[in-house]
Amino acid sequence: MPIPTIRIAILGASGYTGTELLRLLLCHPAAEIRALTAERQAGKPMAEIFPQLAPFKLPDTVKIAAVDWSEIDFVFCALPHGTTQEVIAGLPAAVRVVDLSADFRLSDPAVYAEWYGGPHRAVALQRTAVYGLTEHARPAIRAARLVANPGCYPTASMLPLIPLLKAGQIDPGSLIIDAKSGVSGAGRDAKQANLFCEISEGMAAYGVGRHRHMPEMEQELALAAGGPVSLSFTPHLIPMNRGELITTYVRLINGATVDGLRDTLTAAYRDEPFLSVVPAGVAPQTRHVRGSNRLHIGVFADHRPGHAIVISVLDNLVKGASGQAVQNMNVMLGLPETMGLEQVALFP
Amino acid sequence: MPIPTIRIAILGASGYTGTELLRLLLCHPAAEIRALTAERQAGKPMAEIFPQLAPFKLPDTVKIAAVDWSEIDFVFCALPHGTTQEVIAGLPAAVRVVDLSADFRLSDPAVYAEWYGGPHRAVALQRTAVYGLTEHARPAIRAARLVANPGCYPTASMLPLIPLLKAGQIDPGSLIIDAKSGVSGAGRDAKQANLFCEISEGMAAYGVGRHRHMPEMEQELALAAGGPVSLSFTPHLIPMNRGELITTYVRLINGATVDGLRDTLTAAYRDEPFLSVVPAGVAPQTRHVRGSNRLHIGVFADHRPGHAIVISVLDNLVKGASGQAVQNMNVMLGLPETMGLEQVALFP
Amino acid sequence: MPIPTIRIAILGASGYTGTELLRLLLCHPAAEIRALTAERQAGKPMAEIFPQLAPFKLPDTVKIAAVDWSEIDFVFCALPHGTTQEVIAGLPAAVRVVDLSADFRLSDPAVYAEWYGGPHRAVALQRTAVYGLTEHARPAIRAARLVANPGCYPTASMLPLIPLLKAGQIDPGSLIIDAKSGVSGAGRDAKQANLFCEISEGMAAYGVGRHRHMPEMEQELALAAGGPVSLSFTPHLIPMNRGELITTYVRLINGATVDGLRDTLTAAYRDEPFLSVVPAGVAPQTRHVRGSNRLHIGVFADHRPGHAIVISVLDNLVKGASGQAVQNMNVMLGLPETMGLEQVALFP
Amino acid sequence: MPIPTIRIAILGASGYTGTELLRLLLCHPAAEIRALTAERQAGKPMAEIFPQLAPFKLPDTVKIAAVDWSEIDFVFCALPHGTTQEVIAGLPAAVRVVDLSADFRLSDPAVYAEWYGGPHRAVALQRTAVYGLTEHARPAIRAARLVANPGCYPTASMLPLIPLLKAGQIDPGSLIIDAKSGVSGAGRDAKQANLFCEISEGMAAYGVGRHRHMPEMEQELALAAGGPVSLSFTPHLIPMNRGELITTYVRLINGATVDGLRDTLTAAYRDEPFLSVVPAGVAPQTRHVRGSNRLHIGVFADHRPGHAIVISVLDNLVKGASGQAVQNMNVMLGLPETMGLEQVALFP
Repeated sequence: MPIPTIRIAILGASGYTGTELLRLLLCHPAAEIRALTAERQAGKPMAEIFPQLAPFKLPDTVKIAAVDWSEIDFVFCALPHGTTQEVIAGLPAAVRVVDLSADFRLSDPAVYAEWYGGPHRAVALQRTAVYGLTEHARPAIRAARLVANPGCYPTASMLPLIPLLKAGQIDPGSLIIDAKSGVSGAGRDAKQANLFCEISEGMAAYGVGRHRHMPEMEQELALAAGGPVSLSFTPHLIPMNRGELITTYVRLINGATVDGLRDTLTAAYRDEPFLSVVPAGVAPQTRHVRGSNRLHIGVFADHRPGHAIVISVLDNLVKGASGQAVQNMNVMLGLPETMGLEQVALFP
Repeated sequence: MPIPTIRIAILGASGYTGTELLRLLLCHPAAEIRALTAERQAGKPMAEIFPQLAPFKLPDTVKIAAVDWSEIDFVFCALPHGTTQEVIAGLPAAVRVVDLSADFRLSDPAVYAEWYGGPHRAVALQRTAVYGLTEHARPAIRAARLVANPGCYPTASMLPLIPLLKAGQIDPGSLIIDAKSGVSGAGRDAKQANLFCEISEGMAAYGVGRHRHMPEMEQELALAAGGPVSLSFTPHLIPMNRGELITTYVRLINGATVDGLRDTLTAAYRDEPFLSVVPAGVAPQTRHVRGSNRLHIGVFADHRPGHAIVISVLDNLVKGASGQAVQNMNVMLGLPETMGLEQVALFP
Repeated sequence: MPIPTIRIAILGASGYTGTELLRLLLCHPAAEIRALTAERQAGKPMAEIFPQLAPFKLPDTVKIAAVDWSEIDFVFCALPHGTTQEVIAGLPAAVRVVDLSADFRLSDPAVYAEWYGGPHRAVALQRTAVYGLTEHARPAIRAARLVANPGCYPTASMLPLIPLLKAGQIDPGSLIIDAKSGVSGAGRDAKQANLFCEISEGMAAYGVGRHRHMPEMEQELALAAGGPVSLSFTPHLIPMNRGELITTYVRLINGATVDGLRDTLTAAYRDEPFLSVVPAGVAPQTRHVRGSNRLHIGVFADHRPGHAIVISVLDNLVKGASGQAVQNMNVMLGLPETMGLEQVALFP
Repeated sequence: MPIPTIRIAILGASGYTGTELLRLLLCHPAAEIRALTAERQAGKPMAEIFPQLAPFKLPDTVKIAAVDWSEIDFVFCALPHGTTQEVIAGLPAAVRVVDLSADFRLSDPAVYAEWYGGPHRAVALQRTAVYGLTEHARPAIRAARLVANPGCYPTASMLPLIPLLKAGQIDPGSLIIDAKSGVSGAGRDAKQANLFCEISEGMAAYGVGRHRHMPEMEQELALAAGGPVSLSFTPHLIPMNRGELITTYVRLINGATVDGLRDTLTAAYRDEPFLSVVPAGVAPQTRHVRGSNRLHIGVFADHRPGHAIVISVLDNLVKGASGQAVQNMNVMLGLPETMGLEQVALFP
């Protein structure tokens, strides 16, 4: 089969998810980078914004308004939450889009308004968006014009939970998700709180009890559970660049066992190229997925009878963002799903 | 009041808790370091084992058998679990001891045998040992000859939980303790798993469902709760030297509220020199206690109604080990409790 | 001798050198913190700016204009270069000052103008300032009203070089100073280049061939050499918080040997409380001085005959900034020079 | 052109260079991994030794004695110095070899004996080995059966220096090489000195004046200079995994200028796929080559007239070891030189 040429624009190419898209797409046989936007740095060569890209031929950055859409087949939108919705609403109908922001992840406008402080400004478009947790939405993604790429925490948390909820093995009323993440998820904006000296050699929780990834998880997990779920979600910032580890405490129901949970996950993901269930007794480590599009899952007995602990790890910039975005593009375009995503994890 | 001179021996001075004891005791006005032991490196000057101690006059290391006990008033024992019990059993009755190992923490010989793979070899001595969680055991510590210094995880986990259990505000049947620790707690032995390249830029859980600090917590929390507790404890290794953060998920009972929990802790610890409850909405950070003997606690509403999240942080080598050990010595000897422990946290 | 009470103001208390002054002064028996300034955050409690200071009673921050100078005996000025000179020129004559900025380090107004892009605005005051490299300027410091605290790189570089130049053992025409520093020297301002993700897991040189610490070193080393020196100075940014390591390549003259260099330094600094020459064959490490006011020096044979390599390490926030500032205060006020500066290095 | 299948054995697959070879070769279209050896862990699946390799089908490790050489076309030898020479001497003549150890890098047996403490045990074989600094030895590499892969420091140091020496622009009698490296170069053996707590938040020089990479550089640079060179080489250990930065201080001769040096390097490496000369004023950073096979060079004016500073960066595990090894294999086999080596640097 001849490999087609996909002419790609990345909106918001000066952030970490933007450059990570470039890292992946530069090795993707079908991708041709045609436009890169960066509003505040328009006109700059990418080699100045990201010197590691200097060896590659890339277009200079432009403002979104300057993109020639007749040359673009596919858009990755890596813009901030809030400004994204109007930008995507203004794109020509012919381009297909994976959006990495939160703007199109929530299907209920009321929930959006509650968590984002005001009404959505592209509600009609929002209704057409497909929530792109790839392994669980392939048919809809294939048909979609606009895919809302899941957040890193929801991806890491929900991939293990969805099969278990569907199997009726865990209590949807008691999901305690303790999440730990490297710092790259916080973005590239100059903030004192993210300085090296403020982050290294220390850790802390943040957004306790009110993180915006919660409604996204409640929405999708309810679909899997066939009814509302009750969850607790606490993210922590860890002094490392990439990697996310989720420790989920679940209550077993319907006679489920720890081994039964592992079996369910193993069966559900047996043929998935990017998901692995690690053997019993092995603890998944973020360093084993660094730079790769993989997610590893481990299942453990809890010291409390009738409970289990599920641990999942991914690289927040790859499977948690840009990697899953490329995976979604591959599905949308009928390309092999692993195309451009076969990197081995970088260790050490 | 004239300051007395306490002649001190540190057994196991070549590890991280040993050198941390030295860091603290070298600034302690009553402490005189008389003997340092290191079995495998006996005869070496401390300046070779820890070059940062070169500027200080310290005795060369010797084997334990070579210590002249007539010159020693007080012993800190920082030896490995298992070998400790016989060493302490062989000490002259006149020296008082703080033991930093796990050997004397469990009061029930059967529980010890279950978790440590065999019977205790100094059961009579074990019966006399006082569990030294300083803030909750001062009278017993004052009178003790042998104090079992608590583990770092139990110290960080239990200081917030004990007042809440005593007040009947949280369910003793549902304590989920998600712990994160820097690497210094793993000790100074040459192990591949603790190499810089194996640890940096990554994280993982370990000992899931079966960490040896669990029985210690069950024992002490049951005393506070007035009955058995059920707990889940999962430690994670984080790429940093010092610092431990505990996220505990609790169920509110007897009409308790999140503010009520914070009030209980604030009242309980109002006069404590080393414990603080941070204001509502503030997340405790390990970097704010680095190098100090302090523990900070925050209380948060859980997204699940009727639940709360309690976060506590300490430096595992100070309040989690050597600092609390010095604090216990101060109590045992009737010295001001903060003597030698007034360091301000090192930040950044 | 009764300990006097020194009423202290810290101007610019919200940066890293400001808080480091507080860490040291809170343990200094003579220091009483009376005023803390922070122009942009005036009115904020220090507990908000630096939560690790929450346990201590400290005045809220004010603007400089709001300080009641009748209550202040001594000022530490930790303000940015350029704005400092006018602030200090406006202080009452009765307060004595240690200035941590570069504003008063260069004695020649022409050199200042060349490197700082314009004429000095307090030239008369500049003429009275004493360059405070403590170990080499005690009499002048004792008498000074205004001491210009040396930069971190000059302190680390010049303490080993001055005795060697004075002894005529090394060629003043060929000093190659390769410097490596942790990130805290770059300050607490929110800059993209200093984000955790931009700094960790990487290193780079900066200011190659034109760093502002060069004229300061040329000025002081020329005094030691009795004539002009020619130096190369290249700083590198290393992914760590604290610590500076200087590798200096020198040419031996007048029959000098490597051992002779070590002897000169050992003799020069034998009675210095904060300086050590490490034994032959031992490599000084920054981690052995972290958090302490110490500087360690090693001398090595170069593979090129007739040359030597001198390595020196310090903590850039302590001996390279706030520690040396407190040391200078002690000298100015006739206090024991080590008062408040006896911390043992924090390791690990 | 059809891609051939190269049947590959990696001897010493349990170390960092071994696993890095696997990371690269698993994405190399011509490579087929047929045998992996690990003497002490023979029989273990790679998934246990390196869990990040679990998703890939790889042979279990065996002892070298158990390899079926009839199935192997090409060998990468990543064994320790000293044991390597006999192993390679025992290989069948038909397999071609890239050796990553130091055993075959020195062409003069006397120099080998001086630096490695005894005579070489495969002198005849040593005579046939080609020193594989790819960009400067392609014809010989193409024809070689055995290529000695250069050390990481020599690769990073010599690639900038060789063209400058050949051009007669720098003084071969005065090369001062100040090297900084991440820790992965120290290997995966369990050593106390390489523990996370011993390495993080600190730096130090090591092997000052006597590092084994010196004779290798003297040998190769003398060839470029057409006569003996005199060099000083001082490596430093930096708290990061990957990355090496070399700061070289050179004296300009024959009227050379800084711009002239940059022009020489730009011209020499214009068509090289993996080498870049960065624009004037830009400082090369290790993070821009992390995980890639690239080397970046910058040239700067020294503050001392008549001197220049050359800075080069690479990833010690890729261009400094396994990447250059694969590049050499490509040359030896007539494959496109960049095959399997087109990864974009991983940042952040």
